[in-house]
Amino acid sequence: MTNDTICALATSPGGAIAVIRLSGETTFQTLEKVFSKKLSDAPANTLHYGHIIDSTSAQEGKGEMVDDVIVSVFRAPHSYTGEDAAEISCHGSRYIVQRILQLLIRHGARQAKPGEFTQRAFLNGKMDLSQAEAVADLIASTNAATHRMAISQLRGGFSRELSQLREQLLQLTALLELELDFSDQDVEFADRKRLLLLAETISSHIQKLTDSFQTGNALKNGVPVAIIGAPNVGKSTLLNTLLHDERAIVSDIQGTTRDLVEDVIQIKGITFRFIDTAGIRRTKDQIEKLGIERSLQAAERAQIIILLTEPNVAFPELRIDSKPIIRVINKCDQNMPSSSFLYHKRTPGQYIHISALKGDGIQLLEETLVREAALPELSDTETVVTNVRHYEALMNAQSNLQRVIASLSADNGTPLGAATAFQPAPTIDLIAEDLRLVLSDLAEITGGKITSQETLNEIFSRFCVGK
Amino acid sequence: MTNDTICALATSPGGAIAVIRLSGETTFQTLEKVFSKKLSDAPANTLHYGHIIDSTSAQEGKGEMVDDVIVSVFRAPHSYTGEDAAEISCHGSRYIVQRILQLLIRHGARQAKPGEFTQRAFLNGKMDLSQAEAVADLIASTNAATHRMAISQLRGGFSRELSQLREQLLQLTALLELELDFSDQDVEFADRKRLLLLAETISSHIQKLTDSFQTGNALKNGVPVAIIGAPNVGKSTLLNTLLHDERAIVSDIQGTTRDLVEDVIQIKGITFRFIDTAGIRRTKDQIEKLGIERSLQAAERAQIIILLTEPNVAFPELRIDSKPIIRVINKCDQNMPSSSFLYHKRTPGQYIHISALKGDGIQLLEETLVREAALPELSDTETVVTNVRHYEALMNAQSNLQRVIASLSADNGTPLGAATAFQPAPTIDLIAEDLRLVLSDLAEITGGKITSQETLNEIFSRFCVGK
Repeated sequence: MTNDTICALATSPGGAIAVIRLSGETTFQTLEKVFSKKLSDAPANTLHYGHIIDSTSAQEGKGEMVDDVIVSVFRAPHSYTGEDAAEISCHGSRYIVQRILQLLIRHGARQAKPGEFTQRAFLNGKMDLSQAEAVADLIASTNAATHRMAISQLRGGFSRELSQLREQLLQLTALLELELDFSDQDVEFADRKRLLLLAETISSHIQKLTDSFQTGNALKNGVPVAIIGAPNVGKSTLLNTLLHDERAIVSDIQGTTRDLVEDVIQIKGITFRFIDTAGIRRTKDQIEKLGIERSLQAAERAQIIILLTEPNVAFPELRIDSKPIIRVINKCDQNMPSSSFLYHKRTPGQYIHISALKGDGIQLLEETLVREAALPELSDTETVVTNVRHYEALMNAQSNLQRVIASLSADNGTPLGAATAFQPAPTIDLIAEDLRLVLSDLAEITGGKITSQETLNEIFSRFCVGK
Repeated sequence: MTNDTICALATSPGGAIAVIRLSGETTFQTLEKVFSKKLSDAPANTLHYGHIIDSTSAQEGKGEMVDDVIVSVFRAPHSYTGEDAAEISCHGSRYIVQRILQLLIRHGARQAKPGEFTQRAFLNGKMDLSQAEAVADLIASTNAATHRMAISQLRGGFSRELSQLREQLLQLTALLELELDFSDQDVEFADRKRLLLLAETISSHIQKLTDSFQTGNALKNGVPVAIIGAPNVGKSTLLNTLLHDERAIVSDIQGTTRDLVEDVIQIKGITFRFIDTAGIRRTKDQIEKLGIERSLQAAERAQIIILLTEPNVAFPELRIDSKPIIRVINKCDQNMPSSSFLYHKRTPGQYIHISALKGDGIQLLEETLVREAALPELSDTETVVTNVRHYEALMNAQSNLQRVIASLSADNGTPLGAATAFQPAPTIDLIAEDLRLVLSDLAEITGGKITSQETLNEIFSRFCVGK
């Protein structure tokens, strides 16, 4: 770990002003070579107006003035990164930003890597890993729900909950060791029950967190919706109508891979992500087969399914009971004999009649989507897991904890560590080892345990430069 | 003129951080209602870490935390606007920016109009009007030349030059009044000559400034280039090749109307703007006529003309002597009999052989464009007029000054104010009035003379919100 001085544009380019961040041991030595005022004695948290001067591009021996700027001075450890740091607020021209960054680099700074400022904040103990990840989530937040989850995580809500779990696990370990000390004596069953009870309490706490992931993921990445229907019933038209409806705010949200951009709309603050079912017609011979296959795949990935048809066509067959299915009849603006509508009376359930082309019935469909999404109102105090990495760590913890519980309940009476004739009881050592794994899984979330450089690189590579 | 408190996003949305600006008398009263720390006693030029709290969206009676921010405190008159001012550096989420702006507006601030911060800086005497305009130019600067011109204007280079002119004009007025005092006596001709000499010195100074506008305009908006040639000789291909050449940095620069976006490339730091000659084929019957007409129009607006043809086709006839013409033979990659190249030996001048399709010869064409643009290297001290409004004011000043010169030289000996039998000599009063017009024209540039609210609105409406 080094603390050489890094620099990057922290704002989006363009705009009236732009902000360039600097952090590292030699921040003020570097600044001194490009800024018109001496800052080495400037007190922390002060602002300084002056010029950025390029002395290498000298005209009349004075150096060329690059910009009028305001420099913010931060001193270690009271800065975002925990290091000496500064921010240069300059005019928002890309040309000026490039000139200033080039100057800083020429005078000893280095272009920051993605997320490197936040990574330093983590490494310097200014925040734990889940809080660092919340910074990226906060910047990406597009609505009240994602904002609230990110703020809660940034403020350490999740970290505190993990720390509670850790306390309970340590308590469990302590009790286990107590039992070990008395293992050659005839111990009361009460102790065993107490151990099991505590393990199950922890397990249900972890379960609550992993359960929250579906909500968290839906809020963060959008509730996945599949529109399934026969060719020509108007799937694309419906999608376009939903995407361009004035009541739904369209926004481009990048998927977690940061490559795939899916069709995303927001209705009443809830994000819906439409699963792409295009490409059904790629091979003419296999239309039917591919169509069914892709529909099934889409249905599998979706949380809500819209079954689409038109007056004279039957709904597609889809045997899925576990997910809400919204049945929609399109093209209701066309003059159809009323018998064609009666056709659907045979199918059980309720339908929504729409005209995707004219927009009729779309509002009702949107309201139904919001209702079927069934996302709970979030309170400030409730922790919602939104991060796949956290979810996976919790799942690992749960699986290791289940082994502990199985071991504890394996033999209802045998002192722990004592083998019976029928099966070797798990040794206390093995149970303790599993508990250590659970602790280690949870510690991975906050980065409390030594986290490998690869893991850190992986996490921070998803950040933008300048964060 | 009011100084109610205005607020706006000053950075581009997106990015790791965003900066919201506040300025006006009640800046700190408004901030107090949304920020977790009291800032009313905070010293000028200090930074304060805290939270933005939405107390109206109370959960648990504490208000909802909207973001972790750093607030910069500026005190009148030592701020950009000259008023009490603050900047909120928040996370760069559009949602967060909207929430904070809404909160500020709910607590007494008002959304700033385009350029309103800079307009206040002007109205509070922090800068003159030409400097205020330089702020917009600086933010829009895309290369070394436009950057240098904007910096020079921002630093008051142009203002100082105008102030020199003003001094000279006042001196002229003083001499004129001296002559008036002695007008009934037999004054020496020397005085008249001195007056004329001074007027002509001022005139040539103004001429130098108006002459610089072609350079300034070319540097700022690009050197206008027309590609003229018969149909099918490859005009579009050449344009595309130039636009996508790796050596030329393509950028979107908005024209002065801010509506028309033309094809713009940068070669060696010089911007070239290609005049659109598309649409020639709109009416089949009139191809020839329209083609010639549009070519002539394009040639008229261009500073450099590229005449394009192919091996077997003659160059278009174009009788223009006043502008550099670059003769280019395209499609030189095709297998042509060598006689087809000899064909062009009949036409005087040099040709550049290219293949727009393969990119052959394009570098030579680019170098020729740069040479023919003949833009002077700018020194830091030379004033270049880049603004149409300034150019027009200087042209008006010149025209009024020419009347003064004409009056002064109208009758080489008659005391000023004395009419002869043949023509009434202009009265001193009339000349003095013309001089006042010249002074007023120049004052319009810096806004030193009372500038009408409409003029100000017009000037600042071209700014972005947040400047």
